[in-house]
Amino acid sequence: MADPVDPTGWTCPLPLRDHHQVVLGHGGGGVLSSELIEHLFLPAFGTTDTARAPADSAVLDVAGARLAFSTDSYVVRPLFFPGGSIGELAVHGTINDLACAGAVPVALSAGFILEEGLELAVLGRVAQAMGRAAAAAGVRLATGDTKVVERGLADGLYVNTSGIGLVPAEVDIRPERARPGDRVIVSGPVGEHGVAVLSVRDGLEFGGEVRSDTTALHGLVAAVLAAAPGVHALRDPTRGGLATALCEIAAASGTGIEFAERAVPVPPAVEAACGFLGLDPLHVANEGKLVAFVADADADAALAAMRAHPAGRDAAVIGTVTAEHPGVVVGRTAFGGTRIVDRPLGEQLPRIC
Amino acid sequence: MADPVDPTGWTCPLPLRDHHQVVLGHGGGGVLSSELIEHLFLPAFGTTDTARAPADSAVLDVAGARLAFSTDSYVVRPLFFPGGSIGELAVHGTINDLACAGAVPVALSAGFILEEGLELAVLGRVAQAMGRAAAAAGVRLATGDTKVVERGLADGLYVNTSGIGLVPAEVDIRPERARPGDRVIVSGPVGEHGVAVLSVRDGLEFGGEVRSDTTALHGLVAAVLAAAPGVHALRDPTRGGLATALCEIAAASGTGIEFAERAVPVPPAVEAACGFLGLDPLHVANEGKLVAFVADADADAALAAMRAHPAGRDAAVIGTVTAEHPGVVVGRTAFGGTRIVDRPLGEQLPRIC
Repeated sequence: MADPVDPTGWTCPLPLRDHHQVVLGHGGGGVLSSELIEHLFLPAFGTTDTARAPADSAVLDVAGARLAFSTDSYVVRPLFFPGGSIGELAVHGTINDLACAGAVPVALSAGFILEEGLELAVLGRVAQAMGRAAAAAGVRLATGDTKVVERGLADGLYVNTSGIGLVPAEVDIRPERARPGDRVIVSGPVGEHGVAVLSVRDGLEFGGEVRSDTTALHGLVAAVLAAAPGVHALRDPTRGGLATALCEIAAASGTGIEFAERAVPVPPAVEAACGFLGLDPLHVANEGKLVAFVADADADAALAAMRAHPAGRDAAVIGTVTAEHPGVVVGRTAFGGTRIVDRPLGEQLPRIC
Repeated sequence: MADPVDPTGWTCPLPLRDHHQVVLGHGGGGVLSSELIEHLFLPAFGTTDTARAPADSAVLDVAGARLAFSTDSYVVRPLFFPGGSIGELAVHGTINDLACAGAVPVALSAGFILEEGLELAVLGRVAQAMGRAAAAAGVRLATGDTKVVERGLADGLYVNTSGIGLVPAEVDIRPERARPGDRVIVSGPVGEHGVAVLSVRDGLEFGGEVRSDTTALHGLVAAVLAAAPGVHALRDPTRGGLATALCEIAAASGTGIEFAERAVPVPPAVEAACGFLGLDPLHVANEGKLVAFVADADADAALAAMRAHPAGRDAAVIGTVTAEHPGVVVGRTAFGGTRIVDRPLGEQLPRIC
């Protein structure tokens, strides 16, 4: 019979480094992910405004309200790790994407893809983790869907959460609003989530003293916004770590960023694990941290508000937004030198969330 | 090292037919799916109101507006089939879930899970199908996410779409609102989508004269609601087919349903394929049909409005809601007998959407 595939064909418009196939790096949140979005998804979806900065949430005007809308699929391996599971991650991650648009999260959806043969007890524990995380965050799991695929065609379970939230009228938090003079504040130590997951990954177990930092950040965001109206941009540095978050904000806002590497809090156990694994802690995923870009006049108030909140106790100012070298992030090293900090090309740590 | 799995354990509260593992039927939209929702997800998510009828969309009060919110993951195999692809399905399916809550769809999210090694040309064609379907429906693809898993751990690609829509103030469409005396109207012939997908499935190819009916139904819904304010409930009979949709509405509303099997439009090619495959057309998935439960006084107007719309040209009244045998759906056969029509236990046709 005739091939049911669209006979008009499709010509790949991607730079894509000579790939004609999907590679793990396309899911890594780095350069390859951006190319896929810019050259494949946005043109296909008819989004001609490719200059629009990619944000973790869309903000839509709906019936007079400003609605944030976000989606993320979770494929972390293994499903359970020190400090949490795919369940907490799926709830916190989407809440945090909403929070980084300045939104108050309202409801989440949960879409499961299950592998035939998955133990119901595993699914039950994941669902309970989601329920507990949502209840603790005061966000409703409002609607869901379950599909099952044959044995071997999923890795136990994958889950998508999408979320909606309300952006207060006076709030305007966007990546492109970072501006020269803004102070860069990180809400706590980096690298814990990625190291925690790797510490229990098959073939790599190295002892579990680092726990994932997975947590919901909307309470912290609300506290900071109340204390410091001069917050311009927020980002949760997940895939690709703090370095990627800084690079994305620099690119979106057309500014440069300078930061002191020594000022970035890195727990000794994360530092040690990264040395052992050959990883840069700045590229390791976090699931409960925030980077805030705040007008200089409001920076002290923002820092104090973070430190007064349980999720931001170890917050630190790490750098400044500059008018020089737009789009480029520069780290000052402990020895007084500087280095350009870049996004990873692809996936330094596959399936970390 | 210590087992990172939650040590509090989890006791399976499911009837679940002695399964301790997920089976394909848990994704089939039938009895097993319901058990998973009722006994595992709702308790885990803290939704104690288990009497609440399961609807395809949640309707939330947000900032004075009534917002419909829905999610679906798509795992159809193969990705392309006569009449469409997973791309059209993912856009139309979630739009239709919103439409069946009486909502005007506003925006969709797209969350991809890609298998390493997937041809970018395939992803491109799917994304373009999504873009075209969304543009034709006037609905924005507003936000997205992409994850990649290793070769062998997904079947090419899976995609989740979630959607938000606005329910007009005067509209109250819910499964539990069907009431005795309502007429049951189906918007056109049934069984096309499922047969079209099976016709190109590995090992089963039997010629592709049946095309999927995949289409967006919100225009049809708007036309019917404008013509017939007495519409009480709407359902798009996807997984599990028309029979499952009728059973779910009967259960949710505590009514009985009687319908004439001869009145249900079944295309001859679907009838023939179902005979060959040993399937009941009433259990085969549709992706562009609507079942409406309409007050008797408004039934003629609703039928006329459907028939005047391109997506409802072959609409037909098939039966009536009764106060007798609540929760039970009875089909009158061509020979004057009756039979009880039930939901399938599990998955008659795995991965049909």
